[in-house]
Amino acid sequence: MSSTRIHNFSISLDGFATGEPQSLEAPFGHAGERLHAWMFATPFCGGDGPAGIDDAFARRHDEGFGAEIMGANKFGPPGWQDDPDWTGWWGEDPPFHTPTFVLTHRPRPPVEMKGGTTFHFLTADPVEALEAARDAASGGDVRIGGGATVVRDFLHAGLVDEMHLVLVPIVLGRGVRLWDGIEALEDTYEIETVSSPSGVTHLSFTRKAVT
Amino acid sequence: MSSTRIHNFSISLDGFATGEPQSLEAPFGHAGERLHAWMFATPFCGGDGPAGIDDAFARRHDEGFGAEIMGANKFGPPGWQDDPDWTGWWGEDPPFHTPTFVLTHRPRPPVEMKGGTTFHFLTADPVEALEAARDAASGGDVRIGGGATVVRDFLHAGLVDEMHLVLVPIVLGRGVRLWDGIEALEDTYEIETVSSPSGVTHLSFTRKAVT
Repeated sequence: MSSTRIHNFSISLDGFATGEPQSLEAPFGHAGERLHAWMFATPFCGGDGPAGIDDAFARRHDEGFGAEIMGANKFGPPGWQDDPDWTGWWGEDPPFHTPTFVLTHRPRPPVEMKGGTTFHFLTADPVEALEAARDAASGGDVRIGGGATVVRDFLHAGLVDEMHLVLVPIVLGRGVRLWDGIEALEDTYEIETVSSPSGVTHLSFTRKAVT
Repeated sequence: MSSTRIHNFSISLDGFATGEPQSLEAPFGHAGERLHAWMFATPFCGGDGPAGIDDAFARRHDEGFGAEIMGANKFGPPGWQDDPDWTGWWGEDPPFHTPTFVLTHRPRPPVEMKGGTTFHFLTADPVEALEAARDAASGGDVRIGGGATVVRDFLHAGLVDEMHLVLVPIVLGRGVRLWDGIEALEDTYEIETVSSPSGVTHLSFTRKAVT
């Protein structure tokens, strides 16, 4: 059975997944790279950090996925829809290597990149988007890639099987908050918490078996 | 030099220090006792949990304090000011054992309890309140006892030397949030994070030395 999973989703202590304002020069606003520095330091990402807990979690990003779904705000800076040549932040060979579905109210034709990533653009609610992604995933799992709004929408729809959050010890004060309108996840998920020597804390949410 | 410290201040993953609505029957609203169950389980609080990490942190509540400052919402349920006989939630021998300053817009005469706790009621900003508490503390440290609004006010005023938060793996969705209007604590504090086998995560904020 194909699972729907979220990995390496970093938030500040106060729950922001990005700072503000987001722009071409500052994709995460005033957060800069601080939310993701833990990940860039892992061997998985080519960093010189240890092959320890952060690396083990980071690697799960690539394990067993057949498709990704992301929001418009992950794909590009505000206004990317007006640039017909915009193909994402990640250069010619994006790190997805599967069909990747970008949720947008202004769809465009698919774009095939190097390394197996093809961007598909669609206007869809979470159920419809997951159906399209599962069809394309050839039995693999579907990654919900963020941002915070998309993660929230999929949690609300009850479609997330596993969620890995990374709590980064900074207080952003403003930006896009993951938690708004979410309540009582502990009823639906087992929650495991473990701190890393790097200073971040990994939170693993695993959907409870229905009894 | 007397320090100003916060200990055992529990918040949900989404940053709420209490649920809602708060009442005589439910001091923490829909959060119930879930935010503080980790503490009640410690030997320090008479629980049957291990003498481990949670217990070690919990005990710091009593180490070296000469006074406490708390907000009106910690002292009683909404409307306690209308009850001349209200002397707090804690019975005849409250767990403070020092002069304890309750911030309220409707002061009343001091109340001496058993065990060394005397409640003083005052209308004061954080600087004035801390001055009064230091005067009464006989060289001991001053505990900021909460709730979230008071903690925030003292953080804003730059008066907190140490803060121990406890992140409890529940998502409350609503209540009184610690983080609102707070930003960049990492500039002022060293932040250490450590998870406990009980499931909670201890966050220690220690003011950086001025260089």
